[in-house]
Amino acid sequence: MAAAFRSSLKLRASARLPAVRTITTTPHLRAAEKPYFSNEPAGPKLVTAIPGPKNKAAAAELNEVFDVRSLNMLADYSKSVGNYIADLDGNVLLDVYAQIASIPVGYNNPHLQKVAASSEMATSLINRPALGNFPSADWSHVLKTGILKAAPKGLNQVFTAMAGSDANETAYKAAFMYYRQLQRGGPEKEFTEEELESTMVNQSPGSPQLSIMSFKAGFHGRLFGSLSTTRSKPIHKLDIPAFDWPQAPFPSLKYPLEEHARENAEEEQRCLQEAERLIKEWHNPVAAIVVEPIQSEGGDNHASPAFFRGLREITKRNNVLFIVDEVQTGVGATGKFWAHDHWNLETPPDMVTFSKKAQTAGYYFGNPALRPNKPYRQFNTWMGDPSRALIFRGIIEEIERLSLVENTAATGDYLFSGLERLAKQYPEHLQNLRGKGQGTFIAWDTPKRDEFLVKGKGAGINIGGSGQSAVRLRPMLIFQKHHADILLESVEKIIKQL
Amino acid sequence: MAAAFRSSLKLRASARLPAVRTITTTPHLRAAEKPYFSNEPAGPKLVTAIPGPKNKAAAAELNEVFDVRSLNMLADYSKSVGNYIADLDGNVLLDVYAQIASIPVGYNNPHLQKVAASSEMATSLINRPALGNFPSADWSHVLKTGILKAAPKGLNQVFTAMAGSDANETAYKAAFMYYRQLQRGGPEKEFTEEELESTMVNQSPGSPQLSIMSFKAGFHGRLFGSLSTTRSKPIHKLDIPAFDWPQAPFPSLKYPLEEHARENAEEEQRCLQEAERLIKEWHNPVAAIVVEPIQSEGGDNHASPAFFRGLREITKRNNVLFIVDEVQTGVGATGKFWAHDHWNLETPPDMVTFSKKAQTAGYYFGNPALRPNKPYRQFNTWMGDPSRALIFRGIIEEIERLSLVENTAATGDYLFSGLERLAKQYPEHLQNLRGKGQGTFIAWDTPKRDEFLVKGKGAGINIGGSGQSAVRLRPMLIFQKHHADILLESVEKIIKQL
Repeated sequence: MAAAFRSSLKLRASARLPAVRTITTTPHLRAAEKPYFSNEPAGPKLVTAIPGPKNKAAAAELNEVFDVRSLNMLADYSKSVGNYIADLDGNVLLDVYAQIASIPVGYNNPHLQKVAASSEMATSLINRPALGNFPSADWSHVLKTGILKAAPKGLNQVFTAMAGSDANETAYKAAFMYYRQLQRGGPEKEFTEEELESTMVNQSPGSPQLSIMSFKAGFHGRLFGSLSTTRSKPIHKLDIPAFDWPQAPFPSLKYPLEEHARENAEEEQRCLQEAERLIKEWHNPVAAIVVEPIQSEGGDNHASPAFFRGLREITKRNNVLFIVDEVQTGVGATGKFWAHDHWNLETPPDMVTFSKKAQTAGYYFGNPALRPNKPYRQFNTWMGDPSRALIFRGIIEEIERLSLVENTAATGDYLFSGLERLAKQYPEHLQNLRGKGQGTFIAWDTPKRDEFLVKGKGAGINIGGSGQSAVRLRPMLIFQKHHADILLESVEKIIKQL
Repeated sequence: MAAAFRSSLKLRASARLPAVRTITTTPHLRAAEKPYFSNEPAGPKLVTAIPGPKNKAAAAELNEVFDVRSLNMLADYSKSVGNYIADLDGNVLLDVYAQIASIPVGYNNPHLQKVAASSEMATSLINRPALGNFPSADWSHVLKTGILKAAPKGLNQVFTAMAGSDANETAYKAAFMYYRQLQRGGPEKEFTEEELESTMVNQSPGSPQLSIMSFKAGFHGRLFGSLSTTRSKPIHKLDIPAFDWPQAPFPSLKYPLEEHARENAEEEQRCLQEAERLIKEWHNPVAAIVVEPIQSEGGDNHASPAFFRGLREITKRNNVLFIVDEVQTGVGATGKFWAHDHWNLETPPDMVTFSKKAQTAGYYFGNPALRPNKPYRQFNTWMGDPSRALIFRGIIEEIERLSLVENTAATGDYLFSGLERLAKQYPEHLQNLRGKGQGTFIAWDTPKRDEFLVKGKGAGINIGGSGQSAVRLRPMLIFQKHHADILLESVEKIIKQL
């Protein structure tokens, strides 16, 4: 059945995708395309409907103790390899969702296997330190050869965290402390009695009514502070108390970009002006703004490098910190290691948060004044997890060894071209194609989006959405042109079924 | 030097601690006290002043990239074993702080070594799933044989998290969603247009002004929602915006308890009345209360089981959820697996949060209505970490194999008796001794607390404080009577130096 499925895919591809076919006559054997994973299957394999019977039974069992209503599929990770995820029923899908954009170098990556089996890993797992108090002797080395080796230009320090939400929230905390320190007149200024007392009852001035400004449709996490900056969907926010913080408009660009250059520039200008107005006028003063290089959960909304340079200027001009949330965009997916590398900023962001593909989390910063003026102000028991920091180090090593950022840039261009051809062929199903020159961080809108995603599995791919109507591609960094061919074939297959 | 140090300890102990000595003539060879770790040192070993030269150099190097102002010491975990932590200079300390109360079964525990080296661990580390979407096939099994095997009585479900802060915050979120669901009239009721719109701008009714009530001196974490319930110290809260949530008084008990029974009961009654008044009158309605069984960061403040039963009654009477924060008290340290097991509640807490000694985190619950009414309302990318869930499973196995909760209860009683004797001998240095019958979760106040802690290292112990004036003991569950003897000797040694 699997073989039949593959040949049917190829047949249709031959019939309908001549432009792709000419470039990739024998896509799985292209000489220039040595597969990173020699043991990857040649393509998806479907042996049951998805979910199959074993998946259904296991989901019912899990449901007794764990909410499974958001379940996509139960996976057999021991049988997953590279870009392919296996389920319990023997189905194997090309995974271009990759654990919500968080697997960078493939399932069962051999180099990470070695990292996982190292004695360094074992000691990190079983002797978990309180990193602020009792870091291991080699913590500095682990940071410098790992997390900090990948640090964005101009940022040479890190506060480590556990996931995207607390990475952002600790960055916000640093921003608030910095803001108040400036107001007080420097790090040496002591807190007043009134501050010491009022903060214990959650009142100003000790707990000041300051704010973080985010952007409409932005997503920055789901804990209370991060959720107050998240503006993606009501379902993320309903019933949860939130801070009275401002949101600026994020540009709503029209595609194709080439055809709407002036309109889009005006739209970005409008958003910049409104952002600056809010900073100047919001009743709870803005200590920092936080922005994603590409709004991800909110629907894969892009803006130009000029827009982000403009934001940077506004923050400088208004003494507001500039936090770039690279939780989803970071670690290579856009064809640069950090998405904000595309912007050519004159001064680096004040803080850059990371998680997901880093498999650990935190925020980078450069200005030493962003270390709060006293110890224990930015602190918690674990402050991250060294075992996950070791995994990130392994990921960085693998990215360097295989030039995976360059691969993602090249594969992304190739994939984008293929999608452009499909968009011409099926304009009603492939609208607002975006992410050109942004590696594999590509998306498009489609009217029957949810149906498209469900049908993905029947076409051999695990694929996700974002926002209300976008299909988002989030393949791993080891996604190659021959995988792109399979994806393009599958996309066309799905479109024909809609 | 180390040998000289040990014999000096013994000499002084002989000279000054006759009561202890009579019980433990040859403490390290007591027949009934087979050591859990055969390779543990016989006692602390000091070869340099602490911090020694290597420690200082490593700290200076780390400081380039990571804030070290809260540094206690850099550890050499490869040389740490059981209850003993080694530093870079060859010093070995008896560790009764245990990574801020988070190491349960000893450094380099052999059983955890095996868990760390398992293929299950490797696949969890390198194929990290988005647990809400793509859990591994065995996730249900891992939960049932691990996290849920240890579930508090009456609670059979779990939402997994990363650390104490997000465990509490996700519990708060569940409470808010539940509260609003009751207000709406049930899970099938749809959100209104007004809610859908207002939540996107952080306004009521979609983002309602509800509250979580916590207790004065309580500690529940340092992210924005959890920090709004934290009332431990100004340094934890200053400059960070907070929600306008109420705090109830926590009983301030007098010691020894036997001598102040009536006074203490009245104090608890006063606090209960005030708690109920706040629930009824606070301007932002209270969806849940959160309380620690023993206030830990806030100074090791205890209350009686009757107080907590009273709180449970108040929550029932007022339709408010009862969240017990067992982040620091849970997993055996109080001589029961969960500290609230001491209370004999008629109905279990609505949610119990855990972290620290569990080495993973989350909240337990029993009522299925605490699952939000729609998927993706309680969700995030990772929702915990299966590799850490495997470690917790190993910890539970080790606790069962060695009966470590019973050990902690017995060792705690033994240690408490020894401290009572010291308190009689040095009443000015050992005040308000507390934690009787609470395993090793013991503390006392001492006027020169910070000096006491610093001198601990010179006496061979790594020991921590809580609140303004408490020395808190947080040994591991493998802490045995012969370790208690060493600790008692060290405490006396320190007192004599003050």
